[in-house]
Amino acid sequence: MKGIPESLNNLISEFSNLPGIGKKTAERLAIYVLKTDKSQALPLSDAIISVKNQINFHDLCRSFVENGECVICDDSSRDTKLLCILKDPTDIFIIEKTGYNGLYHILGGLISPMDGLGPDKLNFINLFSRLDEFEEVIIALEPSSEGDATSSYIINELQDANIIVSRLARGVPVGASFDYVDEVTLTHSLNDRIRINDT
Amino acid sequence: MKGIPESLNNLISEFSNLPGIGKKTAERLAIYVLKTDKSQALPLSDAIISVKNQINFHDLCRSFVENGECVICDDSSRDTKLLCILKDPTDIFIIEKTGYNGLYHILGGLISPMDGLGPDKLNFINLFSRLDEFEEVIIALEPSSEGDATSSYIINELQDANIIVSRLARGVPVGASFDYVDEVTLTHSLNDRIRINDT
Repeated sequence: MKGIPESLNNLISEFSNLPGIGKKTAERLAIYVLKTDKSQALPLSDAIISVKNQINFHDLCRSFVENGECVICDDSSRDTKLLCILKDPTDIFIIEKTGYNGLYHILGGLISPMDGLGPDKLNFINLFSRLDEFEEVIIALEPSSEGDATSSYIINELQDANIIVSRLARGVPVGASFDYVDEVTLTHSLNDRIRINDT
Repeated sequence: MKGIPESLNNLISEFSNLPGIGKKTAERLAIYVLKTDKSQALPLSDAIISVKNQINFHDLCRSFVENGECVICDDSSRDTKLLCILKDPTDIFIIEKTGYNGLYHILGGLISPMDGLGPDKLNFINLFSRLDEFEEVIIALEPSSEGDATSSYIINELQDANIIVSRLARGVPVGASFDYVDEVTLTHSLNDRIRINDT
């Protein structure tokens, strides 16, 4: 854009590269950075650099490693008898919000023969090597055909293991009107129905 | 948040300090920075640093100076006979989008006796010293009581100068329904009405 400094134009274009940030919002953010004090603006820049330089992934569980420690495995306050299997490390965000306090095992993808992604390409060897440590394994993969194929593979591999294997319940989302719930979800929610009384 | 690295938590909190960015969006942006390649993420960080270190303001017109040059005054492609008076340097963004190609003079604020802001606190001495260079001065201040007071002050000071003084037209915004236009705007739009025929 004419009439404004090159570096400001550049910042606008960098902000608009972020997902969900349009041109107008990018301008607003760049003007904020321009107007705000250095002590307010530079920490954002530092925080980006830190995330890119300090975060790695644990060889065993593939969740986050920071300053040489696995944020999950090296946290002694966690329940080491529970293991939750996830596709991506960022899925940890969502599960943590539920209050889950066990460990995680990140597969790094889902089985997808169409894309040439077999079990050998995913983090399964580490999974099977550490199973003895746990009382229960919770499969928390997305309800897609790849997610289901991966779940089936895990269930099959663990059928002789002396361990509880569970998966997330599927059903009607809280707050959803029946009008907007598809029949596949509703079928799952019928099949996974929970008994209320004891008789 | 538990279960995720400190530096990622920190980035989320820095993103949510930006105006109009909520917690959810900040998480989404931080995950994007985490997942994306260094070559995509670090330019944003550099761009923030550049804006804070490279941009200053011109002593005379108070618009942006980058690498020692005023982005407006030192641009030889601009019309040096037209001067647009603005409150803030960031107002340049909006006026540039109209295709305006003259120079700017930034006041740095509006006259507001309630806040102890008299003409002596604003960039008026520089304005009066450079008036001889221009054929027309366009006052483009916001239509508030402070904006109007500042406009009146300028009009009064320039009454003996041999220069065209104009202000932005006020009227019905393009695309607005009459139902949503207030009567003050409509009164302005009647007073500023444009004659269509020539007889």
